[in-house]
Amino acid sequence: MEKVRFGLIGAGRIGKLHAKNLSSRVGQAELACVADINMEFARKCAKENGIKDYYGDYRKVLERKDIDAVVVCTSTDTHARIIEDAALSGKHVFCEKPIALELEEIDKALSVVERTGVKLQIGFNRRFDANPQKIRRLIEDGSVGKPQLVRITSRDPAPPSYEYLKVSGGIFLDMMIHDFDMARFLLNDEAEEIYATGGVLIDPRIGEIGDIDTAVVVLRFRSGAIVTIDNSRKSPYGYDQRLEVFGSASSAISGNKAPDQVEIGDSRGMHREKPLYFFIERYEESFVKELDCFVDSVLNDREPPVTGRDGKMAFLLGMAARRSFREKGPVNLNL
Amino acid sequence: MEKVRFGLIGAGRIGKLHAKNLSSRVGQAELACVADINMEFARKCAKENGIKDYYGDYRKVLERKDIDAVVVCTSTDTHARIIEDAALSGKHVFCEKPIALELEEIDKALSVVERTGVKLQIGFNRRFDANPQKIRRLIEDGSVGKPQLVRITSRDPAPPSYEYLKVSGGIFLDMMIHDFDMARFLLNDEAEEIYATGGVLIDPRIGEIGDIDTAVVVLRFRSGAIVTIDNSRKSPYGYDQRLEVFGSASSAISGNKAPDQVEIGDSRGMHREKPLYFFIERYEESFVKELDCFVDSVLNDREPPVTGRDGKMAFLLGMAARRSFREKGPVNLNL
Amino acid sequence: MEKVRFGLIGAGRIGKLHAKNLSSRVGQAELACVADINMEFARKCAKENGIKDYYGDYRKVLERKDIDAVVVCTSTDTHARIIEDAALSGKHVFCEKPIALELEEIDKALSVVERTGVKLQIGFNRRFDANPQKIRRLIEDGSVGKPQLVRITSRDPAPPSYEYLKVSGGIFLDMMIHDFDMARFLLNDEAEEIYATGGVLIDPRIGEIGDIDTAVVVLRFRSGAIVTIDNSRKSPYGYDQRLEVFGSASSAISGNKAPDQVEIGDSRGMHREKPLYFFIERYEESFVKELDCFVDSVLNDREPPVTGRDGKMAFLLGMAARRSFREKGPVNLNL
Amino acid sequence: MEKVRFGLIGAGRIGKLHAKNLSSRVGQAELACVADINMEFARKCAKENGIKDYYGDYRKVLERKDIDAVVVCTSTDTHARIIEDAALSGKHVFCEKPIALELEEIDKALSVVERTGVKLQIGFNRRFDANPQKIRRLIEDGSVGKPQLVRITSRDPAPPSYEYLKVSGGIFLDMMIHDFDMARFLLNDEAEEIYATGGVLIDPRIGEIGDIDTAVVVLRFRSGAIVTIDNSRKSPYGYDQRLEVFGSASSAISGNKAPDQVEIGDSRGMHREKPLYFFIERYEESFVKELDCFVDSVLNDREPPVTGRDGKMAFLLGMAARRSFREKGPVNLNL
Repeated sequence: MEKVRFGLIGAGRIGKLHAKNLSSRVGQAELACVADINMEFARKCAKENGIKDYYGDYRKVLERKDIDAVVVCTSTDTHARIIEDAALSGKHVFCEKPIALELEEIDKALSVVERTGVKLQIGFNRRFDANPQKIRRLIEDGSVGKPQLVRITSRDPAPPSYEYLKVSGGIFLDMMIHDFDMARFLLNDEAEEIYATGGVLIDPRIGEIGDIDTAVVVLRFRSGAIVTIDNSRKSPYGYDQRLEVFGSASSAISGNKAPDQVEIGDSRGMHREKPLYFFIERYEESFVKELDCFVDSVLNDREPPVTGRDGKMAFLLGMAARRSFREKGPVNLNL
Repeated sequence: MEKVRFGLIGAGRIGKLHAKNLSSRVGQAELACVADINMEFARKCAKENGIKDYYGDYRKVLERKDIDAVVVCTSTDTHARIIEDAALSGKHVFCEKPIALELEEIDKALSVVERTGVKLQIGFNRRFDANPQKIRRLIEDGSVGKPQLVRITSRDPAPPSYEYLKVSGGIFLDMMIHDFDMARFLLNDEAEEIYATGGVLIDPRIGEIGDIDTAVVVLRFRSGAIVTIDNSRKSPYGYDQRLEVFGSASSAISGNKAPDQVEIGDSRGMHREKPLYFFIERYEESFVKELDCFVDSVLNDREPPVTGRDGKMAFLLGMAARRSFREKGPVNLNL
Repeated sequence: MEKVRFGLIGAGRIGKLHAKNLSSRVGQAELACVADINMEFARKCAKENGIKDYYGDYRKVLERKDIDAVVVCTSTDTHARIIEDAALSGKHVFCEKPIALELEEIDKALSVVERTGVKLQIGFNRRFDANPQKIRRLIEDGSVGKPQLVRITSRDPAPPSYEYLKVSGGIFLDMMIHDFDMARFLLNDEAEEIYATGGVLIDPRIGEIGDIDTAVVVLRFRSGAIVTIDNSRKSPYGYDQRLEVFGSASSAISGNKAPDQVEIGDSRGMHREKPLYFFIERYEESFVKELDCFVDSVLNDREPPVTGRDGKMAFLLGMAARRSFREKGPVNLNL
Repeated sequence: MEKVRFGLIGAGRIGKLHAKNLSSRVGQAELACVADINMEFARKCAKENGIKDYYGDYRKVLERKDIDAVVVCTSTDTHARIIEDAALSGKHVFCEKPIALELEEIDKALSVVERTGVKLQIGFNRRFDANPQKIRRLIEDGSVGKPQLVRITSRDPAPPSYEYLKVSGGIFLDMMIHDFDMARFLLNDEAEEIYATGGVLIDPRIGEIGDIDTAVVVLRFRSGAIVTIDNSRKSPYGYDQRLEVFGSASSAISGNKAPDQVEIGDSRGMHREKPLYFFIERYEESFVKELDCFVDSVLNDREPPVTGRDGKMAFLLGMAARRSFREKGPVNLNL
């Protein structure tokens, strides 16, 4: 098997991005067909990538013998079922986060995956960005020494629609879940305690639908390292994605990435461009690399770099943050 | 009265710095005499500043009719008493932080100050640095919009001696007290809730004397703004003093200050100098400015920019942080 | 015509890059065949891009009726002849710089292009980078005001082989030609006077083959703007590609681009990564964009953004620099 | 002799700065009297520094037996004569640049200084800034390797008055003279060849009085290093003082210095403050350090760090630049 033949399930924004990457940028991948409950979405996505097969029902993809793996980009509530169906059809699965919004569903999906022996990778793409890759390497090779403080800043340029927010699971499961995964990835360790606070500081309507728009979480990891995460749904200067690890031997701080390197000086001051607009632009490379790694796992029978367990752990941290916020006090974790 | 005539009480490290500033850099100040329980310290400090009068007993200073004000730089346990004695002698008082390590002492000292009507300024010098000054201005003039998140990073190049630490009051009262004051200064608001965590990550001996060396605190202010403070007693790259205010209209981040502006590029990468070594170097200008402002308050009968109440409020936040840390949960404040 | 069908002529390093871009990243392009005098190179390049047709003789490409355009990446001495042959076959031509090392050859090739009416674009890819694009826009929209000083820094991580250098035309025609084009592009103006100096400061063997390895050139443009260019064949910190335009209303400076945004702080200082290694990495996007633009010129019958005349003008500046260096004095230009 | 007793001659802007530094910031100095042909200036300056002696005639200063040294800040045309008179009175001399605008005058003054054996230091204060100090150290200790390219950027926030410009000696002698000294200081070497170009790009009236407002100079030093200097009388973003040394082992670049470290992010971009306003603010520390060094030279009988010869050499480079500009070609130097 020289190439992995993919079926794409779900051709929305992120699905189209994966389709394009599978078609042209992921070395040993081939996109063979596309499915979307909206048949027209499937047709368009197929056409844009020069593919003729598209379906309205994802099970058509699973029936095909020539398909090795699927990329699942449907709405969250369908992830767990599609993972199970795909695994039972012997297809390897790359699935967007989160696996589900209920622990039972996650556990059930993961047990099917385990039983069938297919590969499952969760779409925590940020891990594959050059910055966390480098910081993790600096920790692993001892350059940082013992990590003591970690800071993760994650602020979006604008909140999603209220419709999206209503079914998103809330800021801790929808947005901060990426940051929980990042903390676990950087430290290669698990959290012991979590404290969450936050509020509705941006838009009262977000409060009306039972969510918050600004959140700060503090975690204590087993090693003793203390992690602070802050999230905002609306940053005036755009997408803010900074990381900081402070250790006994050195610190590593990664700043934002801008579309150009120009600094303008005029009578009012010195001016640079805002960060790259949003995750599509900012993490462009990481979306290619996560699939490169998934393909490698499939071709060489290796454990994927982001496992189902990683998906579950980040979910559990999100749930614990939710509880801490509600109960107004720290929550102990037994992860 | 054209100049304010000062007596210095306490001629240790910070006392010597104030003495030099009063002698040569604070426009309308004049240093007239120096007192220190160690007579030799007093003599040396007087000599270095071209002054002939020095004493072992600070009450000699207070007896002098030609002295308008005193600068108190003695050990913390003597602050409250000297403030009271000075106030009762009609001297204005500039006193290093903290006022005391017991609330009763603070309240007693402040009530004497109030009764006598002398000016009292507390030595929260960092407020006078160009960076917080600018950020506060940006908040006040509306540039930042509504402040939502604040981040204060305060890490020392090396821990003080165990002897010092033993009587310091602990990391929250000795070190983070500056950051509590900074949060109050930037937001011009009071905290409602505080959560503190931390640990002994640097030096087990600091744990043995009942203190911690690494701390993270989260505060919620009345306005809803959430403030995160982190402290470390030992930063590998030196004194780290960063601030960040994130608001609805803009954010303002202040970075560290370095001794030069040189970047070196070689086969291993691009290299810059570490930040200025410690508070003496980093906040040099602010030590002059706080005295300039104190002198102005005395000469023009204005309220000092850092009042006794400011000293008390920062102390109360430190006490609340201590309690939160001990009780492992957030503490409500009624400040 | 929905897509432009390309034949690649010359499958060396830069040819392979263009082949990959044409195959997967340039939207309306299709790579149909590859030619290289080294048949094995052609075969490999074809295979890597999933194409079956390859040739040892570029005329086979020109004979094909289904080919709309060629990309010429052969050695410099063959450019002019291939441009002519392609033009006479009615193929549009994208050709790497320089067109030739003799003015007569350039003029002859350009006159054939003009007569046949095909599009010709020269491979000054750097123009398409985000930084010069932005700076040119800032000049055009008046933000910069009247440009007064321009600075172009161009330093390579390591010199090419002596074999390459021998036939390269020398530093002014081989390396600085890109910077001459950049100056013309940024200012949208022509030079009136040029002064060149330089020396053999890196490797005496470069001197032995009659070239220099370090050069500084000053140009005065018609508008009065003064442009300084410096070139070095070997920069210890790698590929240095900075630009600066200083005008009456503002300046715009573009810095280098690094592979990540991490800053490490340790006891020796603050450290960042070196710039991206060399032109393949640094100008990756620009190689895609120049072909996007060429394709657009072909499909919509527009003048290419880098014309044959641009290729000639940069060549003439290189020749004038050579003369100035030899004659040790400024040379007037009548361009 | 514990302290050096100074007389100040010339109490204009820079004179007042030196007076204040001598009074309060230069450790082993004491300002004893002030002279200015404008008696009122002398009186005010004396008063501001708590001194009672002031004169209209500088010879009164030279007559005083208790004066060890003078600081000369009068108009340029009087420098040479005052140096001679002071030297003949046995006073050490710190004199602002330039020594004179005629070589004969400079030579005459230097010969008197030599004969009398007094110390003479010229006010090239920029050498004492932390950045050139560090870069020179990096060259001396071998970190830079062999210097190949040097770049000095010197741009003023606004041109001086036409009256000043008329008697200034022109941009090369008035403004670029600092940069010539900087090049000599950094490389610790002499120039062999100089080429100057420039023009009137800012204000036609500067052209009408026979001067230019924008200049670029290229120098070749004996070591082979090529130095580029650019000057502008008016920079939209303020005082620009950057240095760059590019060597075989590393490069060192020094950027501008800003009044604070705040970066603001808003919907239009990321914004920092402009550089410190002008030389008084930017080089504040260097003015103290140059006098510290002069005092040390006097007290310990050492050669001053900026000698009369340094003053003469920078003058000769200015004259050669003027000639190169007039003759439109490079000028060989036999320095």
